[in-house]
Amino acid sequence: MHLPESHTPSIEVCFTPKLVPEVQLAPGYLVVLVDILRATTSVCAAFENGVKEILPVATTDEARALKEQGYLVALEQDGKKLDFADFGNSAFNFTREAVGGRTLVYCTTNGTRALNIVKEAECVAIGAFVNLTALTGWLIRQRKDILILCSGWKNRFCLEDTLFAGALADRLIRSGNYGTRCDSTEAAIDLWNTAKNDLTGYIEKAAHRHRLKSLGLDDVIPYSLTPDSTRVVPVYRNGVILDENNH
Amino acid sequence: MHLPESHTPSIEVCFTPKLVPEVQLAPGYLVVLVDILRATTSVCAAFENGVKEILPVATTDEARALKEQGYLVALEQDGKKLDFADFGNSAFNFTREAVGGRTLVYCTTNGTRALNIVKEAECVAIGAFVNLTALTGWLIRQRKDILILCSGWKNRFCLEDTLFAGALADRLIRSGNYGTRCDSTEAAIDLWNTAKNDLTGYIEKAAHRHRLKSLGLDDVIPYSLTPDSTRVVPVYRNGVILDENNH
Repeated sequence: MHLPESHTPSIEVCFTPKLVPEVQLAPGYLVVLVDILRATTSVCAAFENGVKEILPVATTDEARALKEQGYLVALEQDGKKLDFADFGNSAFNFTREAVGGRTLVYCTTNGTRALNIVKEAECVAIGAFVNLTALTGWLIRQRKDILILCSGWKNRFCLEDTLFAGALADRLIRSGNYGTRCDSTEAAIDLWNTAKNDLTGYIEKAAHRHRLKSLGLDDVIPYSLTPDSTRVVPVYRNGVILDENNH
Repeated sequence: MHLPESHTPSIEVCFTPKLVPEVQLAPGYLVVLVDILRATTSVCAAFENGVKEILPVATTDEARALKEQGYLVALEQDGKKLDFADFGNSAFNFTREAVGGRTLVYCTTNGTRALNIVKEAECVAIGAFVNLTALTGWLIRQRKDILILCSGWKNRFCLEDTLFAGALADRLIRSGNYGTRCDSTEAAIDLWNTAKNDLTGYIEKAAHRHRLKSLGLDDVIPYSLTPDSTRVVPVYRNGVILDENNH
């Protein structure tokens, strides 16, 4: 249902999934899920490279059962690929050769937990710097309230997801189609405006970046922080993620 | 127990009491409780005006029972004074005539909930702009890890508490005695540096400020945002708040 013309849709930012119960938007809002390092960036990369659909799962057991049925499986825990999986969740795994035309089962520590929390929402769009402009356009066309949900790191606030939330909220509000009365949204926008002229330098101080570096998984960071390498808008509905710009 | 010389004490910022379970500091840290609008500012004002001690309570029933025993009681819910109480919790209630030499029972929506969550900590210092410099000095002398706990508003992130957390963390780190690997702390410091040259103007966009204004309780805001009107350092131990600079 579209909102009446007179209502300016509202934006809230949630810094971690743990704060979702405190959201004040009326039911019916859209969710934008954000996990810049790495799940939502990787999902966009997979669609850019022609994956047919993605089935997010919350547990290793579900992923293993689907692997035994012949599905491609991406699964990592605490930043490491599990034995039986085909991939970890680095965007660089999802080449056209590996995923083009295939169905991919996707299980991650942070992203799937967040997706699971909001599974009662009408739909969940997948947001990352790599699809910022395409996502902004799609959201404006929906004309609904928006919850930007940062995956964070193990329920903690994290800088890179917050900066993306700020970038997206800033564009939506500047478009004239959205407002906010949410302190988290104001803070995210101000942090984005502090960081945007040297995003890579700024993100150096993010704790999760150091975690990835210590695991040797930081090669994908420049790609993850570069806007608009793709036009895909992956959207989760009824258990499956499809590219809304292709459907 | 003081930390060994070689250990640089660490700072974490918690944006709401709901995120306390995610804190990564080792046990034994100090807590700084922050509720700028209004509880922690008001507690500082009461000590500046000579209150003997403050007994924080979590429920209206406890406050009522203590009132019947003859105590002075400050109690508000959702920004409004309850009938049987002597005061709401505006700093301007706590004049020397009203509280000097007395014991005050104090019950609030946000502050007491937060205090209750951390009641297992060794002690909880009460932080506000009005005692920023005195508190900073006291903390540096303790040489322990510090959790800066923002009360927020009904478990949500709020700007004014976060700005104070940033101001305090910035001073502690610049003193050379503290470090941080916490994204929340970095974000709070950057927001503080964005806001500090026009704090009142910046806080105009905070949602809670609008809530107080609609209740006619915003007269205390300029006082609450002005640093260093007092040298008190109220500290909560074993159920009672006393001024650490007088004991």
